[in-house]
Amino acid sequence: MNHFVSMKNLSEHEMLQLIKLTNDFEINGIPHFNEKIFAANLFFEPSTRTKMSFVVAQKKLGIETLDFHAEASSLLKGESMYDTAKTFEAIGAQLLVVRHPEDHAVQELAKRMTIPVINAGDGSGEHPTQSLLDLYTMYQEFQSFKGLNVVIIGDIKHSRVARSNAYALKTLGANVYLSTKKEWQDETLDFPYIDIDDAVAISDVVMLLRVQLERHQDNELLNDAAYLEQYGLTKKREQNMLRHAIIMHPAPVNRGVEIDSDLVESKRSRIFKQMENGVVARMAIIYHLFQTRGIGHATAFNKRKTSISK
Amino acid sequence: MNHFVSMKNLSEHEMLQLIKLTNDFEINGIPHFNEKIFAANLFFEPSTRTKMSFVVAQKKLGIETLDFHAEASSLLKGESMYDTAKTFEAIGAQLLVVRHPEDHAVQELAKRMTIPVINAGDGSGEHPTQSLLDLYTMYQEFQSFKGLNVVIIGDIKHSRVARSNAYALKTLGANVYLSTKKEWQDETLDFPYIDIDDAVAISDVVMLLRVQLERHQDNELLNDAAYLEQYGLTKKREQNMLRHAIIMHPAPVNRGVEIDSDLVESKRSRIFKQMENGVVARMAIIYHLFQTRGIGHATAFNKRKTSISK
Amino acid sequence: MNHFVSMKNLSEHEMLQLIKLTNDFEINGIPHFNEKIFAANLFFEPSTRTKMSFVVAQKKLGIETLDFHAEASSLLKGESMYDTAKTFEAIGAQLLVVRHPEDHAVQELAKRMTIPVINAGDGSGEHPTQSLLDLYTMYQEFQSFKGLNVVIIGDIKHSRVARSNAYALKTLGANVYLSTKKEWQDETLDFPYIDIDDAVAISDVVMLLRVQLERHQDNELLNDAAYLEQYGLTKKREQNMLRHAIIMHPAPVNRGVEIDSDLVESKRSRIFKQMENGVVARMAIIYHLFQTRGIGHATAFNKRKTSISK
Repeated sequence: MNHFVSMKNLSEHEMLQLIKLTNDFEINGIPHFNEKIFAANLFFEPSTRTKMSFVVAQKKLGIETLDFHAEASSLLKGESMYDTAKTFEAIGAQLLVVRHPEDHAVQELAKRMTIPVINAGDGSGEHPTQSLLDLYTMYQEFQSFKGLNVVIIGDIKHSRVARSNAYALKTLGANVYLSTKKEWQDETLDFPYIDIDDAVAISDVVMLLRVQLERHQDNELLNDAAYLEQYGLTKKREQNMLRHAIIMHPAPVNRGVEIDSDLVESKRSRIFKQMENGVVARMAIIYHLFQTRGIGHATAFNKRKTSISK
Repeated sequence: MNHFVSMKNLSEHEMLQLIKLTNDFEINGIPHFNEKIFAANLFFEPSTRTKMSFVVAQKKLGIETLDFHAEASSLLKGESMYDTAKTFEAIGAQLLVVRHPEDHAVQELAKRMTIPVINAGDGSGEHPTQSLLDLYTMYQEFQSFKGLNVVIIGDIKHSRVARSNAYALKTLGANVYLSTKKEWQDETLDFPYIDIDDAVAISDVVMLLRVQLERHQDNELLNDAAYLEQYGLTKKREQNMLRHAIIMHPAPVNRGVEIDSDLVESKRSRIFKQMENGVVARMAIIYHLFQTRGIGHATAFNKRKTSISK
Repeated sequence: MNHFVSMKNLSEHEMLQLIKLTNDFEINGIPHFNEKIFAANLFFEPSTRTKMSFVVAQKKLGIETLDFHAEASSLLKGESMYDTAKTFEAIGAQLLVVRHPEDHAVQELAKRMTIPVINAGDGSGEHPTQSLLDLYTMYQEFQSFKGLNVVIIGDIKHSRVARSNAYALKTLGANVYLSTKKEWQDETLDFPYIDIDDAVAISDVVMLLRVQLERHQDNELLNDAAYLEQYGLTKKREQNMLRHAIIMHPAPVNRGVEIDSDLVESKRSRIFKQMENGVVARMAIIYHLFQTRGIGHATAFNKRKTSISK
């Protein structure tokens, strides 16, 4: 693994390795790089959650961050992205974390770069770090993916989260179902579409997607309450969920649109747990890439150190 | 004190404690946190001075900063602010510093958060950290607040600085006077309004407020020179100030509007001293909150260490 | 040297001293400041490359960065810039790095400030840190400037890079030629203008300038291909360059406008090398200013330490 840009091309072994490394960091403590290593976070599209999660992950590992936000539209052209990436490499970055609005733009960039590239979301392409944290959240709950029923609900067509998770979960042996209205179905994804009420009743994991209001300004959307009623997780539907089933959402949540506001912090919800897991999952990805590439020397900060040293 | 969101609800004892802690830091050196502690600075409204002052305070204490600037208007809705705050808590922030354009929004947020929240200014509500640095600046000059005459001049109605300082100074036993034109008086503040020329002649502290030009685009304003002449601190008025009296202003200053440009860096002016004090006052607030909550372990960096160790 | 704001007023000795310090840092390792020292990067104009280069330079030296981006137009007024600079000084900055859209604005600011100021580009004035990294790049190649033929090609009139480099190279004994179309010639620069084809054939260094598309929206520009053909470095012209000659460009490059895209990463090109050199050159400037001013105590991080300690 030279870059981390897609879940589609990862093997089951590679995914489980990253999940276990994440778990190891959470339980046994995190490593720390002692040299000055610079990571550049290149966000050609706005982001709070993902960017900040990377920043915390980097700083906890002892890595210095360089933050870049594109604003000028000229920077949105693919060629400029490459030159920007090369610039950060030239001034000393040893890792690039890149978000870009064009489908597969980051995967394409990685092919041309020698330093490791992490895809922080590219268009409707993939969002593999979100997927790893989602997988880790399910692993914490169920310890296995074989035969796990996961339904992904919402705007499948435009969702890089859905795409990365569907690929990954299939590789790991879970049963993936999709549920959405016709216009949001994606023909390129080979998974069964089922009715939301049926889906909710059989799933171990109910994963909601964000309605990307900014992409649908053409009145195609119902009003919020009607959308929730037809396609969202209402309190009534939540009552039909399996006893042990959990609710997931990549956030930010549109409360009262894809999910009833009261469910966001309910017992079943893992929404804020997902964010928490995002930091440690991203640390595992960065650490793994650096190990593979021979970048930096990390000292283990073992939480159990004191008991071990007895 | 679980949060630091308002001066109105602080006791005299609590204020003096913070003022003394600020003074202690300035004289004896500052503590330093050695773990990775993250503070999130959530600014839902633009700010240079206050935000940078917090960043320096945090970094001097050894705390890592996470900076967030809201731009999208969707983020300005109260509910989103709560979810943003919870997000930063989930990714590891142990302190939130929040500025928000809505009155009392930060006070409301603090009620719902478990990690400590500092109000960095909310609408026309309060600006308690500015107030603490202002109090400390007066303390440096006069060592006591009892019977001190302080006049606050300018757009009282829209000023969170005026509100926080008026409450605090009253609690501390100072005599607070307000001076402004009719439209900018605030009926909810129970302090005497007096004429600017009378005020200047009897005050130990002449505190000017910034004319918030961005809030008054409707031609209600006089031109700058006329405003200065009627409501601002002209050189002529400055000559009528008491011998020992000082000039304060929360900045940024509109030179030639609320104050003659030549007075900004004059002998009486404490305007840049206030900014300097802001850093140490904010360190004291953060340290005090962390002590109360049991967050982190700080090492004392005592300036007198060498002499003490003799 | 109390500030670093212009190449025009530096002596040959001062330039060579900085070039040698840069070289020393590259070969022998860089120093590190162990106290908390804050540098404020005040960018009143957008920048990625230069700003990030300064940030890396500062962080590698162990200096904390405070980043400021002006957006509100009110901040663009000269007076406000001074107050902003004083604010950063008051909150603890011991160095200001300033970019400003007005000609010579940073040079004027430096006259009023006591803490050291570095000019990171002011209007069409100067860009002395870009010039130092350019000089260092030439030094690496040729070890001397006497008699070196350098042609600067492009929009001379609006280029602070051209101005700083022309002054500096003249002082160092190089032969500077300029090549551009009539409208972009600058009468205040006393250097010969020559035809691009003649220039390319005799130069050791072919330095291209960026066509500042954002400054020329009035249709005065040819289309990209025609511009390249008439005024840019085409592959055909590159073949007429001297065997040992190099291509330089301050970046960002408009590929296919001032230079054929294929030449950007060609063997002759030092474009990304220039960026790499920018970090170490800026470290040398900062270190030199701090030494002159007695700011901070630096520990040497000598790359040869291990071999020396044998």
